[in-house]
Amino acid sequence: MKIAILGYGNLGKGAEISVTNAPDMELVGIFTQRDPASITTITGAPVYKAIDLINYRDKVDVLLLCGGSATDLPHVTPQYAGSFNVVDTFDNHNHINEHFNIVHSAALAGGHLALISTGWDPGMFSLARLYSASILPSGKVYTFWGKGVSQGHSDAIRRIPGVKDARQYTIPIENAMEAVRKGENPSFTARQKHLRQCYVVAEDGADKAAITEQIKTMPDYFEPYDTTVEFVTEEELLRDHGELPHGGAVIHSGTTGQKDEHKETIEYKLTLDSNPEFTASVMTAFARAVFRMYQRGSRGCISVFDVAPADLSLMSPEEMRKNLL
Amino acid sequence: MKIAILGYGNLGKGAEISVTNAPDMELVGIFTQRDPASITTITGAPVYKAIDLINYRDKVDVLLLCGGSATDLPHVTPQYAGSFNVVDTFDNHNHINEHFNIVHSAALAGGHLALISTGWDPGMFSLARLYSASILPSGKVYTFWGKGVSQGHSDAIRRIPGVKDARQYTIPIENAMEAVRKGENPSFTARQKHLRQCYVVAEDGADKAAITEQIKTMPDYFEPYDTTVEFVTEEELLRDHGELPHGGAVIHSGTTGQKDEHKETIEYKLTLDSNPEFTASVMTAFARAVFRMYQRGSRGCISVFDVAPADLSLMSPEEMRKNLL
Repeated sequence: MKIAILGYGNLGKGAEISVTNAPDMELVGIFTQRDPASITTITGAPVYKAIDLINYRDKVDVLLLCGGSATDLPHVTPQYAGSFNVVDTFDNHNHINEHFNIVHSAALAGGHLALISTGWDPGMFSLARLYSASILPSGKVYTFWGKGVSQGHSDAIRRIPGVKDARQYTIPIENAMEAVRKGENPSFTARQKHLRQCYVVAEDGADKAAITEQIKTMPDYFEPYDTTVEFVTEEELLRDHGELPHGGAVIHSGTTGQKDEHKETIEYKLTLDSNPEFTASVMTAFARAVFRMYQRGSRGCISVFDVAPADLSLMSPEEMRKNLL
Repeated sequence: MKIAILGYGNLGKGAEISVTNAPDMELVGIFTQRDPASITTITGAPVYKAIDLINYRDKVDVLLLCGGSATDLPHVTPQYAGSFNVVDTFDNHNHINEHFNIVHSAALAGGHLALISTGWDPGMFSLARLYSASILPSGKVYTFWGKGVSQGHSDAIRRIPGVKDARQYTIPIENAMEAVRKGENPSFTARQKHLRQCYVVAEDGADKAAITEQIKTMPDYFEPYDTTVEFVTEEELLRDHGELPHGGAVIHSGTTGQKDEHKETIEYKLTLDSNPEFTASVMTAFARAVFRMYQRGSRGCISVFDVAPADLSLMSPEEMRKNLL
């Protein structure tokens, strides 16, 4: 199947590697808003102008939309879903149904299939939540994130005057996770589930105490959490905090038995050295499913919930049953 | 949807509770080879003779086959798959494709849908293996079992002369799991992954040293493992080892990046107080999917790999996306 990538940030680069490694896929090219001449790709894949993408309508089976959820995907996904089968990583949980409906109309109108909100959360974590809730409907599910870099929180710090650069780690509180694993079904405040750890590069002469105060009191982002702030040099930030690790765990705890006397705990845990590369690997597997489902006649918008796992695999049904069932 | 249960051992009892708790299901009854008059059900569900089941062809949407894999399911599943939509927990990994093909023919001939090998391994662990292998195809997957009671190994001990009763726990070796979590991709012998812990009630005057020797040297079952044997009284066995806990973890470790420089680890872990009740809860959720897929026209044999997760859920697609995606 022929794959194209729109957007060449961290996610697009991860997708380039993942698609290139897939034996059943061919990477048609990378499409960008920037000047293609300014970009050297990792694998040598060709780079084209985003505006030329429409000329590749008949040469692309699935288009991976590798833009950001905040500003790009809300309009980019509906824009392309009419002309291509697309996969996106829309992750604004509060607006997923809204995004779904708009993309659904666009995809149906153009006779294409669109899969939104893949990746790991939403994505693999959503699947962990759905399977668990379906098996043990009376149980309670908890999602913990980290340890990992939150791009949104890092950006929020960078917008503070006097801040040159910053990196924010979200850290799950181990005692909280343990209480959930024990089936205690606790109720948590935001502060009881996660810590926020900030590494900040201040501009010369900036008031560090004022920056710290502004971070710790920032509504929604930091105020509801215990937050630590440490100032580092630009070199230290690059050297010690230059990667984008992430991960977390979905823990579902429920009961079975006539008197709910048996506790059953399901945990799905990710430990990722590279958040964007793992996300891109998930996108690539779901692109395979989109191609197959489109060939079988599926149209409109779907999510990871609508994909039979067999459609993600490179193996034949017999191999799958023999080796993995 | 109308559900019937065939077999009333631990699994059948778990299914009775799980189906009764499902708001979209009605339990038609429990069918057994034994004398129905000899059975008092947990929920008061009616009990019928297995031989009468065929008269309920038009009154049952899905039949849960709650017999054992060793002797029952290889012939029971094909027998009923022609007349009912069925779900089984066939767990003989080496014969799954053989079982699949026989059940497929029977189900197709009768115009029904059969889902085989559900539960947690095969079942949820199979799904964990398939998703992981699809996302990170270059990685390596490891399955650890326990701590939990292995019925097969407990039975094997009971067949030794002089043994009155026994319970065997399979215990994963923590250091081995840690090596996998660190992405070291180790190779293990059976002995390096699991321990076997046996609690044995000896008959009066039995030669305990001889029993211990026979257990530890039993081929396949115990010889390839480090095995401990402890003799206990009948009361102690009932009091301390009367439950059927189990669980384990599927850990997949792979890499991403141009030079495979980033490790990504996916872990799916179950901690179960009751193996049969959890297995029954999984069966119940997949029975829902079988009913829906049958209504949409699916026929023949399928596995958990062929079921879109949305079909397991009680929620509407909108609710699912809002609450779980």
